[in-house]
Amino acid sequence: MLKDKDEQRTSLASLGEFGLIDHLTANFKITQSSTIKGIGDDAAVLDFKSKKVVVSTDLLVEGVHFDLSYMPLKHLGYKAVVVNVSDIYAMNATATQVTVSIAVSNRFPLEALEELYAGIQLAAKIYNVDVVGGDTTSSTKGLLISVTAIGEIEEEKITYRNGAKENDLLVVSGDIGGAFLGLKVLQREKSVFEVNPNNQPDLDMYSYIIERQLKPEARKDIPVLLNDLDVKPTAMIDISDGLSSEIMHLCKQSEVGCNLYEDKIPLDPQVISTCEEFNLDSTMVALSGGEDYELLFTISQEDFPKIKANPNLTVIGHMTQASEGIHLITRANTKIPLKAQGWNAMDADSE
Amino acid sequence: MLKDKDEQRTSLASLGEFGLIDHLTANFKITQSSTIKGIGDDAAVLDFKSKKVVVSTDLLVEGVHFDLSYMPLKHLGYKAVVVNVSDIYAMNATATQVTVSIAVSNRFPLEALEELYAGIQLAAKIYNVDVVGGDTTSSTKGLLISVTAIGEIEEEKITYRNGAKENDLLVVSGDIGGAFLGLKVLQREKSVFEVNPNNQPDLDMYSYIIERQLKPEARKDIPVLLNDLDVKPTAMIDISDGLSSEIMHLCKQSEVGCNLYEDKIPLDPQVISTCEEFNLDSTMVALSGGEDYELLFTISQEDFPKIKANPNLTVIGHMTQASEGIHLITRANTKIPLKAQGWNAMDADSE
Repeated sequence: MLKDKDEQRTSLASLGEFGLIDHLTANFKITQSSTIKGIGDDAAVLDFKSKKVVVSTDLLVEGVHFDLSYMPLKHLGYKAVVVNVSDIYAMNATATQVTVSIAVSNRFPLEALEELYAGIQLAAKIYNVDVVGGDTTSSTKGLLISVTAIGEIEEEKITYRNGAKENDLLVVSGDIGGAFLGLKVLQREKSVFEVNPNNQPDLDMYSYIIERQLKPEARKDIPVLLNDLDVKPTAMIDISDGLSSEIMHLCKQSEVGCNLYEDKIPLDPQVISTCEEFNLDSTMVALSGGEDYELLFTISQEDFPKIKANPNLTVIGHMTQASEGIHLITRANTKIPLKAQGWNAMDADSE
Repeated sequence: MLKDKDEQRTSLASLGEFGLIDHLTANFKITQSSTIKGIGDDAAVLDFKSKKVVVSTDLLVEGVHFDLSYMPLKHLGYKAVVVNVSDIYAMNATATQVTVSIAVSNRFPLEALEELYAGIQLAAKIYNVDVVGGDTTSSTKGLLISVTAIGEIEEEKITYRNGAKENDLLVVSGDIGGAFLGLKVLQREKSVFEVNPNNQPDLDMYSYIIERQLKPEARKDIPVLLNDLDVKPTAMIDISDGLSSEIMHLCKQSEVGCNLYEDKIPLDPQVISTCEEFNLDSTMVALSGGEDYELLFTISQEDFPKIKANPNLTVIGHMTQASEGIHLITRANTKIPLKAQGWNAMDADSE
């Protein structure tokens, strides 16, 4: 988990006139036909022709969103891109470009930034986006990453949060709760390490949930899949804050209610076993955990046959009249009001 | 210069579920026809039809780019937008949207952020851009603002840094050096204030240069003027780092040399008098000062008659073969190599 400190370190100040961003992005390639001009001028130039443009932005702050004692810089760079393109996919769009700005204190050597950018470059390759701009500046403390993601979409496919209708089915991709539990495991190992630095933790049994935390993936495949299945979601959002608060966003903006079925929430076996170990309720973890970057969307009931056989998608509830409210139907078949426990007032993200 | 501390203070934590960005941007209006959906979903949705899209991004960090002891928050919000739309104008484009993300420590009350956003809103109104997205998060220390500006332009009008040709004229808008000297005055007054808090400085004689520092304006009018005059610049850049380093960017990317004439550099009388007071060379200040946000561009000699009568524009030199190098021709008619003294390796900005 710890970085090798013996590598050669080049101070950022020693770079002199050489442009830091130019150096870090020198081998980034332009692959998108919509990118006319990337890094190197006052602004990037893009061409979306008749398509609409979607834009989303996020800040990641050291000590708030990540802890470098267990988050390798390459993973951090990767994750910074992932959390932003996830917002683009949540519009049912294709991500095409990102800009990446970093503020960094002098304690970071050039090699650390190269590692960060290696993660950014890997994510750009995997998510097929061009890095077309950025700004690198010094900070008085810590590391901060600001990413803006840009995507394209045909007008008729744009999926907002506000289109869910009564009786629509609520669908989630993948499984949830893993990223939160991965963080719990990493925090526990950090505490152990602080007491006994020679302890070599065996984290194999947590490999999936740790990867969900350190190297989350955005669901680039879901807009493609839905298009292939000829399903247009009526509303969509990505799960960054936790299932519960995302459901509440969809309901509020669509002016509908919702019944969510506890027994339908997709959980990985590692989530269930780790919840038992930590004495946590797996439903609470799924509802409030956050950072899963799965997509949550609603579809018309008539589209159900198109998605029902797909292992990537799980129907977890249905929308109701707004007056019926938003409820969790428990395994014991009791109906309890859902609360937005995933919410954090100081981390409000809205585009 | 100091803020009234008696105003009511609302802690950010007390906002609870109420979305901070939603609160701060509640009365922001959408005015651009290219904005289909602003704040409130996973991403903004924009429509540029057949026009090309330009994108630029900048970070402003407390303690690096601004000092809140003399920079009022409203001015800071205004300036954060200005420095970004300036990059859009430097492409000869029209700015249309911005996203604004802030990281802020808990020492800032809600009222401080409201003031910051009042400045952002004022700039959005004056520069006719929609605020379509953002992210508000906590920081462990200080205030950081990340702005991404988006603009539109007809393909044939795009002006890169790399189009300057031998014999082209080098032109600058407005006058330069003021922003740097404004900062010098403010820094001096801060030192005086620290020794004697009861001192009431009389800053009237510095009003222009202080405004250039605290409330700079981007040259929205220049792309419009050039279009009206039927002049397409061959290359363009905005002056953020200082005239000298911007000339070097143009020359490097265009593969040309340059002769810059010292006696042509436009200086405001306050710049000249304040240089005398501070015992600074006004040419050095103009070359290295930075933050003027004027536009620097090259035009074909045949376009000279179209611009020569315009009080907003000054011809300050001409481009040469690259092999001739980049020189300042002094008032004494000596030729000295230009150096990029405005450069700072830790503040490299390139889109």
